[in-house]
Amino acid sequence: MPASRKRLLLIQAFSLAAGSGYGMRAFDGPKEAMLMNYDSLRHLLADVDWEVHPGAPATHGNHPVETREEFAIVGVNRLPIVRAACESGNYDAIVLLGGGDPGFPEAREIGLRHGIPVTSCGNAQMHVASMLGNSFGIIDISEAHNMQMRELVVRYGFADRCRGIRNVNFPLPRPNLPDERPVQAEKAKHDRGETSDMVETAVRESVAAIEEDGADVLITGCSAAYWLAPVLQQRLNDMGWEVPVLEGYRCAIEQAKLLANLGVAASGLAFPSDRPRKWRRSKKI
Amino acid sequence: MPASRKRLLLIQAFSLAAGSGYGMRAFDGPKEAMLMNYDSLRHLLADVDWEVHPGAPATHGNHPVETREEFAIVGVNRLPIVRAACESGNYDAIVLLGGGDPGFPEAREIGLRHGIPVTSCGNAQMHVASMLGNSFGIIDISEAHNMQMRELVVRYGFADRCRGIRNVNFPLPRPNLPDERPVQAEKAKHDRGETSDMVETAVRESVAAIEEDGADVLITGCSAAYWLAPVLQQRLNDMGWEVPVLEGYRCAIEQAKLLANLGVAASGLAFPSDRPRKWRRSKKI
Amino acid sequence: MPASRKRLLLIQAFSLAAGSGYGMRAFDGPKEAMLMNYDSLRHLLADVDWEVHPGAPATHGNHPVETREEFAIVGVNRLPIVRAACESGNYDAIVLLGGGDPGFPEAREIGLRHGIPVTSCGNAQMHVASMLGNSFGIIDISEAHNMQMRELVVRYGFADRCRGIRNVNFPLPRPNLPDERPVQAEKAKHDRGETSDMVETAVRESVAAIEEDGADVLITGCSAAYWLAPVLQQRLNDMGWEVPVLEGYRCAIEQAKLLANLGVAASGLAFPSDRPRKWRRSKKI
Amino acid sequence: MPASRKRLLLIQAFSLAAGSGYGMRAFDGPKEAMLMNYDSLRHLLADVDWEVHPGAPATHGNHPVETREEFAIVGVNRLPIVRAACESGNYDAIVLLGGGDPGFPEAREIGLRHGIPVTSCGNAQMHVASMLGNSFGIIDISEAHNMQMRELVVRYGFADRCRGIRNVNFPLPRPNLPDERPVQAEKAKHDRGETSDMVETAVRESVAAIEEDGADVLITGCSAAYWLAPVLQQRLNDMGWEVPVLEGYRCAIEQAKLLANLGVAASGLAFPSDRPRKWRRSKKI
Amino acid sequence: MPASRKRLLLIQAFSLAAGSGYGMRAFDGPKEAMLMNYDSLRHLLADVDWEVHPGAPATHGNHPVETREEFAIVGVNRLPIVRAACESGNYDAIVLLGGGDPGFPEAREIGLRHGIPVTSCGNAQMHVASMLGNSFGIIDISEAHNMQMRELVVRYGFADRCRGIRNVNFPLPRPNLPDERPVQAEKAKHDRGETSDMVETAVRESVAAIEEDGADVLITGCSAAYWLAPVLQQRLNDMGWEVPVLEGYRCAIEQAKLLANLGVAASGLAFPSDRPRKWRRSKKI
Amino acid sequence: MPASRKRLLLIQAFSLAAGSGYGMRAFDGPKEAMLMNYDSLRHLLADVDWEVHPGAPATHGNHPVETREEFAIVGVNRLPIVRAACESGNYDAIVLLGGGDPGFPEAREIGLRHGIPVTSCGNAQMHVASMLGNSFGIIDISEAHNMQMRELVVRYGFADRCRGIRNVNFPLPRPNLPDERPVQAEKAKHDRGETSDMVETAVRESVAAIEEDGADVLITGCSAAYWLAPVLQQRLNDMGWEVPVLEGYRCAIEQAKLLANLGVAASGLAFPSDRPRKWRRSKKI
Repeated sequence: MPASRKRLLLIQAFSLAAGSGYGMRAFDGPKEAMLMNYDSLRHLLADVDWEVHPGAPATHGNHPVETREEFAIVGVNRLPIVRAACESGNYDAIVLLGGGDPGFPEAREIGLRHGIPVTSCGNAQMHVASMLGNSFGIIDISEAHNMQMRELVVRYGFADRCRGIRNVNFPLPRPNLPDERPVQAEKAKHDRGETSDMVETAVRESVAAIEEDGADVLITGCSAAYWLAPVLQQRLNDMGWEVPVLEGYRCAIEQAKLLANLGVAASGLAFPSDRPRKWRRSKKI
Repeated sequence: MPASRKRLLLIQAFSLAAGSGYGMRAFDGPKEAMLMNYDSLRHLLADVDWEVHPGAPATHGNHPVETREEFAIVGVNRLPIVRAACESGNYDAIVLLGGGDPGFPEAREIGLRHGIPVTSCGNAQMHVASMLGNSFGIIDISEAHNMQMRELVVRYGFADRCRGIRNVNFPLPRPNLPDERPVQAEKAKHDRGETSDMVETAVRESVAAIEEDGADVLITGCSAAYWLAPVLQQRLNDMGWEVPVLEGYRCAIEQAKLLANLGVAASGLAFPSDRPRKWRRSKKI
Repeated sequence: MPASRKRLLLIQAFSLAAGSGYGMRAFDGPKEAMLMNYDSLRHLLADVDWEVHPGAPATHGNHPVETREEFAIVGVNRLPIVRAACESGNYDAIVLLGGGDPGFPEAREIGLRHGIPVTSCGNAQMHVASMLGNSFGIIDISEAHNMQMRELVVRYGFADRCRGIRNVNFPLPRPNLPDERPVQAEKAKHDRGETSDMVETAVRESVAAIEEDGADVLITGCSAAYWLAPVLQQRLNDMGWEVPVLEGYRCAIEQAKLLANLGVAASGLAFPSDRPRKWRRSKKI
Repeated sequence: MPASRKRLLLIQAFSLAAGSGYGMRAFDGPKEAMLMNYDSLRHLLADVDWEVHPGAPATHGNHPVETREEFAIVGVNRLPIVRAACESGNYDAIVLLGGGDPGFPEAREIGLRHGIPVTSCGNAQMHVASMLGNSFGIIDISEAHNMQMRELVVRYGFADRCRGIRNVNFPLPRPNLPDERPVQAEKAKHDRGETSDMVETAVRESVAAIEEDGADVLITGCSAAYWLAPVLQQRLNDMGWEVPVLEGYRCAIEQAKLLANLGVAASGLAFPSDRPRKWRRSKKI
Repeated sequence: MPASRKRLLLIQAFSLAAGSGYGMRAFDGPKEAMLMNYDSLRHLLADVDWEVHPGAPATHGNHPVETREEFAIVGVNRLPIVRAACESGNYDAIVLLGGGDPGFPEAREIGLRHGIPVTSCGNAQMHVASMLGNSFGIIDISEAHNMQMRELVVRYGFADRCRGIRNVNFPLPRPNLPDERPVQAEKAKHDRGETSDMVETAVRESVAAIEEDGADVLITGCSAAYWLAPVLQQRLNDMGWEVPVLEGYRCAIEQAKLLANLGVAASGLAFPSDRPRKWRRSKKI
Repeated sequence: MPASRKRLLLIQAFSLAAGSGYGMRAFDGPKEAMLMNYDSLRHLLADVDWEVHPGAPATHGNHPVETREEFAIVGVNRLPIVRAACESGNYDAIVLLGGGDPGFPEAREIGLRHGIPVTSCGNAQMHVASMLGNSFGIIDISEAHNMQMRELVVRYGFADRCRGIRNVNFPLPRPNLPDERPVQAEKAKHDRGETSDMVETAVRESVAAIEEDGADVLITGCSAAYWLAPVLQQRLNDMGWEVPVLEGYRCAIEQAKLLANLGVAASGLAFPSDRPRKWRRSKKI
């Protein structure tokens, strides 16, 4: 019996208009170009059929998201895409791309109505990290994004496993803050073999997460920092630290495959519909 | 020195169009009519100036909210109202009406930028309940709403104090479910002195929350159940149970007054802006 | 309908005899003089009727309290004052002044028998801090007082929210230790515009509480340090930290008003009488 | 080398005047008569020198204690006895008799100043129970006493191990409640071989603690229920339950011997003096 | 680029000699026959290369394991098989079959030295359950096995997610207990379409886990109960409960594929070697 | 009535063959020589009858244990000795010597079947530490041993009390690592009055455990570090720290006496036999 080939839809968090000054991924064109760091994950997509949706056009502004309000807005914007994908019958699982997981609980609720699992990068990283050690730390980019990650940790029930969030303080570009040092410039520097302050800071904070916070595993927070994961992995290995460093796309893709293979989406008790067939008198926290 | 008279804006969760079949509050007209159970809270508004906003027009459908998706949508819809109120300079505090607290964290983030505290019913009830006993239980209306309340308990850090959520199973009206027993009919029955199944079930579940779950205080979950609070209070007292029963409007109004009087809105460390003046290398969970 | 004007009794923790060398408040005379830092809280008392009780004469010695034994003794001494106030019918709420909250649980038990809420400074600060951020830190004065504050945190159920206690190490005066640097001298220095070691240490420890402990909000522990709250607030704001700093009197007064307005004292299930009307087979922790 | 013979002072919680109607122990006379259930613990006292102090005369009323206020009063009353015993040089350890542990933290603080360990019945039972299983349940006598026990569980850090408190609802005698069914009458019935409602209820609640609450070990709460421990042990064994049932005197005596043998009293970091030799900038909760 | 085909070794917990009276799987012969319930998992093995090891010959007795001692013995017996498999270079991941996870932490330690992930059934079920809901319950077979499962929950850090363990009380066969009702007879009854007491009890306990314990997801404990998972899934679905029911083999296989695909085994910080390249001054719990 | 003289068997963790290069205790000869640091505990053995078993011959290699696998192997090897001791009728309690507690849960299970309490060093230290303060820290010798101690803390339910593990990084001798600095050489240096790096590092880490981790009490992890306990106690006292430092033999011996005196071994509900007389439908975690 051949293994069935699963069909995945990868949905970006949002789509920016031209001129955003945020050059980390394409918002249209070939599906491979819309995935950051594609080379590091192509082997994971080799045994599935997959599509990429560029994300709903951004309505919060023409820049990436960092505040609570921005996350809430793009989260809601993404839901019709999720519903349409579920209703299409074309997919066995949906992968929400991006850190901060905008719209994830709501998308799971929608997916479950169709028996389709939905995974998201932050959530998937935390699950995989929990498989590898007793605890994990998060390497992330800015104050506001840090607190979004903290919220996810609490909501997902990983407070006991997460030992803290480390901030390298490279906030994302905003129209009113044009002169800040952009993440993509740091990546370009690194790719050219130059020293990147962002990389050096991330190495320092990774070691602090290990030594001071007691993290057994590291995960990267914002998707704009996912390119750091293999860089940190190498640097930390070179220093002698036997610590896994996880990025989000790969974890979310593999978790989607696992759930689709097992044929499970989510518990209807955790995401009840408006009129479930059975109800409970009592719920625990 | 006379006490300064604080100015409050009370914002409903959403506004339905005519014909929604949800007759528990007005969506326009005198401000008093837009507040459910106004008589029970008028004395708390006597020493403040106050306005009511009917809420943003619903875009999720013409019915109350219960699912994750619906809460997310109305939460985002409410944010422009919050921002406009903050920018107007007309208010010292904002009260988000409704159970389930849609848009609350995002509204706090906005309010903080203007130094204006924002309170919300579920959150306020949990804070007041924590002042009165070691633990509380929630009396709520439906499976989906229960899980929204659970999410709030976790996000707000009350998991250790909340002993569980009790479901009386009177879901809110929906177009596709016209024949269900509506909450407002139960209230009408009770107001006429007739026996209401919803009241009787709520009494039974309240006793179970006390005896089986170990709750010291009870709070009502969905705002459609707030009218139950004084009814349950009386019934439980008559049975001999010395247990406070809290509803949301009163708690949220009083908490807004407390915060406005103390001159505090929220911690900027918990709700950092996109470019805070100071940043931290490390955050704990 | 006019708002009813609530009647508050503020009860000091203890009253020292002349010559104690503890010059931070008067033990008799005008009520305003018996409140430390009155100017910072007079506006909160403008809409209530209020009295101050100077506290029971100290029986543990003629000096402030810091050890467990001293807190226990003054706590018991204060209870007859609470009972008499409740029985008088003259008050709608009672505010226990002082850090360390001596006699608070017992006073709540007494108040509840008369339907009168009782608040206390440390407890009120922790509740307000929980409204403002995910976590708080305590800035306190000495080893022994620190551990009393720790005990309160645990008893009140705030262990998950409290990120630690910072010690500025300015213990209170004692007869056998006459040469120590007294807190009131530090306050006097600061009031004269001179540099106070206590202030500088408190600023340093506040920053450590924020940066190292992860506190979102700061509260001051011992009432002898309440004068520090606005000083720290200003200094931290000047440094760019958006962190609320709370002192006890103001929080306890506002919480008393909130509870009196809502008409709730405490749960009889948490503070049962010797023969309650109803009893439970089982209690959870 | 012979083992040194340790010297213990056992201090009762309080001493009632004649006519209290509380006939469970003598308040003067031979030391053996002042210990309830002496026969069950005499073998534990055979290898030590021991004295009994009848307890300070009660000032809260001429009846046993159950409310918070009463526990606080007798706790403070007991402290001078503890101090005098420590200062006498006559004792290697002090055992505070009675359930509810009045004055225990304060007594430990005093004992530590003299290097003398102090144990108390509730605390000792919880420690021994933790040695025997993953969890324990408490069998106790009344609503008010239950909540005192809950407070101890929280303060002592046993919240994770304690699965709940079961109430047999036999409150202690009070002057204003002369007609209630006294505990000592239940004990007398049982001793005569008659059926005691208290015993039968305690058996039922013990089984509920095991089956419903998941307790691995049982401890008795109020010292007035310590006589139940061997009765329950036998009854539960006869039913097939392999569950240890602990009473307080024996646990507190053995813990006192253990600590005295090991030469440890308490950590000075947990119970700092007013001027400790070393201080810490920071304390965790 | 084609996806690489991973190579898995599945290792049974132990191998019994002929005549054990435990007929749920073969201990030699075709690899398919050595896997219980093979038909339910063959599709998961279609895209990998796989082998089965029958397990080390049992030294604790010729019967399945239930006590702590038995689990410890078979756990140690399995380690040389794990080491040999790692050293062979023939495998990308190792799957430890069986409930109760004997030898799992030790096997992970060995696997990590070779960069080879090791999964185990109980652990994998808990991870997958955590992906599907807020909480899970365990349906298990006997008192002793229940407590082994409890130990795993605690060790793996799932105490907050696990709502309890339900016992259907069908202990495994033992030589000295020949007349008990064997699990395989229950399975045979069920396969013949007859009513099985084990199935009916498991349905009842599953509903109790959902309704009383608040479990969102169910997992089966002992591998002798894995055949129940699809049966319970069907029965609960038929009753209207939208609850996933997981068994161990499938979860452990899919987790092994996920880890092998991601190229991660475990954190060296959680499983340090005897002389790691880097060490930490401090470890948190 | 004379106190009965209890009979203890002390069982070493393992016995090495000649030439192991591990010279901290004898593996045969007089019982006193087989106990490390005998002089510090002889007074605790004066009132009991006692024997020492040298431990089962090591099968993991001829060196001390540090990895998970090694702990598992020696743990299983020790069980037949425990069973034989229980069956002999010669002992009232069994003390498992050595840090890391190999075989402890399994030995308790065996002991309970005979009504005989079993104690173990790490477990006993944690219990005694919990009697002395709110929290404890562990001073330990190597990365691998640290993680074994962490596992014990979690399994024993002390995660809330343990503030961390400090590593002095003096791993135990291994054949393949002959040039490392052995612990016994450090001890010898110290005994000769020379400066030992191990002692100095342990003092530094102890202070860090107190000041940075917030430990109230210190325990030593590996038994090879037990000789450090009195050294650290003295050094820390000299510095002014009022902190108890505990080693394992003394705690385990005294706990064994306590349990034997009280006549309790363990709860049969925590360690059920394969066919207990009573079973429970449900177990909590």
